[in-house]
This record gives sequence, structure tokens and C-alpha cells, in this order.
Amino acid sequence: MALPKRIVIHELGPREGMQIEKNPIATSEKIRLVDMLSECRFPEIEVTSFVSPKWVPQMADAEEVVAGFKRAAGTRYTCVYLNTQGLQRAVMTGKLDVEGSLSVTASEAFSRKNTNRSIADTFIETEKRIEGFERFGVKAQEVSVMAAFGCNYQGDIGADHVVGLIDRLMGMAQDHGLSIELIQLADTMGWANPQSIRRLVGKVQDRWPAQRINLHLHDTRGMGLMNALAAMEMGVDDFDSAVAGLGGCPYAGFKDAPGNIATEDLVHLCQEIGVETGVDLERLLEVAREAETIVGHPLPGKVMRGGHLDSYRRQAGTSQVQA
Amino acid sequence: MALPKRIVIHELGPREGMQIEKNPIATSEKIRLVDMLSECRFPEIEVTSFVSPKWVPQMADAEEVVAGFKRAAGTRYTCVYLNTQGLQRAVMTGKLDVEGSLSVTASEAFSRKNTNRSIADTFIETEKRIEGFERFGVKAQEVSVMAAFGCNYQGDIGADHVVGLIDRLMGMAQDHGLSIELIQLADTMGWANPQSIRRLVGKVQDRWPAQRINLHLHDTRGMGLMNALAAMEMGVDDFDSAVAGLGGCPYAGFKDAPGNIATEDLVHLCQEIGVETGVDLERLLEVAREAETIVGHPLPGKVMRGGHLDSYRRQAGTSQVQA
Repeated sequence: MALPKRIVIHELGPREGMQIEKNPIATSEKIRLVDMLSECRFPEIEVTSFVSPKWVPQMADAEEVVAGFKRAAGTRYTCVYLNTQGLQRAVMTGKLDVEGSLSVTASEAFSRKNTNRSIADTFIETEKRIEGFERFGVKAQEVSVMAAFGCNYQGDIGADHVVGLIDRLMGMAQDHGLSIELIQLADTMGWANPQSIRRLVGKVQDRWPAQRINLHLHDTRGMGLMNALAAMEMGVDDFDSAVAGLGGCPYAGFKDAPGNIATEDLVHLCQEIGVETGVDLERLLEVAREAETIVGHPLPGKVMRGGHLDSYRRQAGTSQVQA
Repeated sequence: MALPKRIVIHELGPREGMQIEKNPIATSEKIRLVDMLSECRFPEIEVTSFVSPKWVPQMADAEEVVAGFKRAAGTRYTCVYLNTQGLQRAVMTGKLDVEGSLSVTASEAFSRKNTNRSIADTFIETEKRIEGFERFGVKAQEVSVMAAFGCNYQGDIGADHVVGLIDRLMGMAQDHGLSIELIQLADTMGWANPQSIRRLVGKVQDRWPAQRINLHLHDTRGMGLMNALAAMEMGVDDFDSAVAGLGGCPYAGFKDAPGNIATEDLVHLCQEIGVETGVDLERLLEVAREAETIVGHPLPGKVMRGGHLDSYRRQAGTSQVQA
């Protein structure tokens, strides 16, 4: 299949990237990061997470971050929440594009470990979740499967198992009159490779040709960006990523920090292969370097160090050739 | 085209990786690195570089390193040299598998900058080089093109230009009765992407179907490993890489350190997609972590931090599934 002409990138750095940082980041710095990212013209930025400050102290200032950033035209500002209480907090800010998602973890072991709930319990919980969407007037257009390719606690996850889970979520959505437009496949622990991407994406495309697919990829073992390419080569045009690879770290001390694929590396790849993103790469590279200052340690992004190829082409007085 | 059943990996860490390090590395540590790599069962390890100590002080102990390491059965131990003097030094050690290569840089600007010689001069010089091979009884079975995809000083390099250079080198080889078995394409400054890999590899395969292709890839902009995959998908089965991504560094201070693709990340990718390498990945991951100790700073390899997927599968009591 041909590459998409254009992809949509959801920038997750302010939320997923910050969450893993051990040292507290000043609220003003979090706001500054969101505002800088707005200048890069993302279609969507995930601003923060409404979770219990007891479990994730880094996110205790969620309301303050939301109050502080400036909305830019053309960008949706989303957030994460895990239960009705979090959903209510998000809605109460009156400033976010709160979206609903029906989600499940494909790994029984990780589901219990991460959410203290079995997969079966998650489906029961999903009914409550949908009630919350109805109560707060939140549109739910997405189903999502986490650990869709493999799990550190359970091993590989079969594509047919994932298709079965999506099928069940789609059925619940239909029962509640929800119109699902996006199917998210999340490689939460970095298990995917281009072959497993092709296998699962192919099955999902065959089964639900009317829905778009979003891929949420981690670069835990260096395969993140090639997985994005494999998906684009199958026509997938919707991706999550985090500026500078926020959430990851090249220090051994951050062993368990998986790290999303770095947004600027994805944008740069797209430019090189002729796929539009609408993102301002020059500005984004500056923001990536600032992100390292904000978290106070190196981040895994490559292009911010290796340099944007178009900048070298300009210095050499040439432009990209395809022969 | 189907993936190759097996690929050959040339481990460059002790040579290309060390060369860029600013702090002196103890000779004993260099020897230890070669010996540890020998335990990983590489078909080939590049041990050192016979260059002027005036220009590359890190390599002033080349003879001592060669004298110190232990040869393992089944591994070829190669080296780099830039002129007849270097070739003589390499041969004199009596311990290396000294190989001859006819090489040229595809970028006029980089050729002048890096070797103080035009491309035209390089071809003249190559005649002398071949005389050296004859004089020292060194087999030359390889032609090599550096900066074969692009150059920081000149921009993109066209595939037809590279094919023309190879053609000329092949002609010279023929004139001297040399039998060329391997064509090396080096992405010296990290300009390749999967599209340009397919373009150039395709043209070279069409033109010289009897020769194998070797790819020497840098991960300067995060595309190194996906370029290796794109080449494998065209049947290429010969790669250069450096343990832990030696030669690169995630510090901003190493801005210009391009970094080869990390050997263990390549081996891990191959295991995941069913391509054999013959390399002991468990041992290699230990060596990658030791390499960080030897150079005294973090290195870019991912799997040494993210963890080998088979180790998680074992913990979970499963093995890799393909469905």
C-alpha cells in the first residue's frame, strides 16, 4: 500500500513524558512546554493527566497546568483520566478537549499489575465509564488496546486475541450508540516489530475498514520508528509520540523508562520520505532541546543532536533529490 | 524479496567506536573489549586502525592492541589503514586478516575535507593502493563508496553517481585481475532513509548481481536500524555495526559523534524477525554495558537498557509466537 500523503501526530510529551520523571518539574515549566509545543502546530497535544496525586505526585498540579497554558487555534488539547473522578476534574477545567475512549489491556498479567483489575473486570468497568461519558456529555469515538503486541510479564500477545478484544469493545460501543472512528493499538512495553505491526494492522484493517488506526509506539528496543514506517506503509496515518523521546532516558538508572518514539525524529523521517505532518520541525527541534533542560537530563531524540538534513541541504545550497 | 536466512555482521566497535573518544582509553581496556567481543562469536571484528598518531592519538597503540588480544577460531580480525605505510604496519603484526579495498568518497566536498584529495585524485591514488596490495600479498575483494547517500557538506548523493563510481572501481579491479566479491555502501554521515536504500541497493543489485552488498550504516538521525531492515528486505546480508553504538553518545557535547548502528540492537531485531546472525546476544549485551564503562559515558544502544525480549519471554515461561 502507498504511504499516506499526510499523518496526524498526537504530541504526548507534557503528559506521558512528565509522568515518569522522578524529580518534580515546576508547574511553570510544564506550562512553558505546552506553549512551546503549540507553536509547532500540532493537531493535538496531550496536556496532563488527572490521576490521584497520591500515586502520581508529578501530576498533582494538573488543574494549574491547564489553567496556565494558552490555547492555540487548530490544536486540540487532550488529557488522560482513569476514572469518573478524573473525568470530572478534566471537564471542570472547561478548557480541554475531553475525549472518551473504551480501553482494555491485552495482557491479563499487566492488567492486574497496572490497574489491579482483570481483563474481565475491565469490561464491566467500561460500562461505568460509558455512563460517565453520557453524564458529562463527553464524546467517545475511540477504542484502545494497550500492550497489544507483547508484555514484559506475559510475553507475546497474539493478533487474534487483540482483534477479539476490539470486537468486544466495538460491540459495547454499538450497544450504547457510540460511533467509533479510531482504533488505537498501543505497544505499551515496546514489543512490536515490523512483522507483528503488519500482522495486527492487517487484521484490524480487514475487519474494520471504516475506522482509522492510531499507533502508540515505544522505542524500548530501538524498533519504534521502523514500526511507525511499517504502519505508514500499510496506510496508517495516526500516531502518538513525545517530543525528544520524553519519558525515556539514555541513563542506565532509567532502565525501566520505556520512552515514546521521539516526535521530531518521526517528523524528520516523514519529511525525508515525503509524508506531510504539518508540524514545524525547526521549532520542534528547539523545543526538544528545551525539554532536556526542563527535565534536567539527556533525552533519547536523535535528530536534535544529529541535525535536520534540510538544514545541511540549505548550507550546501541544495534541496532534496530523489534520484 | 524475502529476508535473508542469515546475515554476516562485522563488529567495528574497537576501531570506529574508539576513534571518536576524546579521552584516552587504556590499551589494556581496548584489548579487553576485543577479547570480550570474541566471546560473542562474530565472524569479523575490526580491531584497530593504523593511522598517524599525530592525527589520531587514540590509535597510537595499534600494534600493542594487536599484540595483546587473543584470536578466537572462526573470527576474522581486520583493521583499517589509509596508505601504504599503514598497510605495512598492519601486515607486519603478522596477526591480522589484512584485507584490501578499493574505496572512494562519493562527495567531492567531503573527499577534500576528509582526505584532502579530490575524487579524481582518489582514483589515481587507488593505482598506488593496488600496487601496495600486490607488494604485500594482500587480497583485495571489496570496493567501497563512502558518503554514498548524502553528505553534510554537499547534500544528497544521487544513486546514479554512486553506480558510476562503483563501475569505475570495478573496471580498475578488472584491469588488475582482482576478483571483487563485496560492494560496500557506506552511509558515513547518516543520510540514508529506507527509500534511498531501496533505490541504490536496487541499482547496484541490478548492475552487479554476482557481488554481495555490505551496508555500513550510521544512526545519526534515528534511521539506521530501519535502513538495515529495508536492505535485508532486499536480500542484503552483510552489515557493519558497533557494540552499544560505540562512536555515538547521547550527550549534546558529542554533537558530531555520528555513531554506527548498535550491534546488539541489530542482532535483537534479527532474532525478532527470524534472521540468524550466529552472535551470542546474551554475552553481547553484557559487553555493551562494559563498553559504557570502558569509555566512561552512556552509549546509544537501546536493548541493553530496554532488555532482550527473549529474557522476558523466559521469565514469563513462554517463547516467541508468530500469530
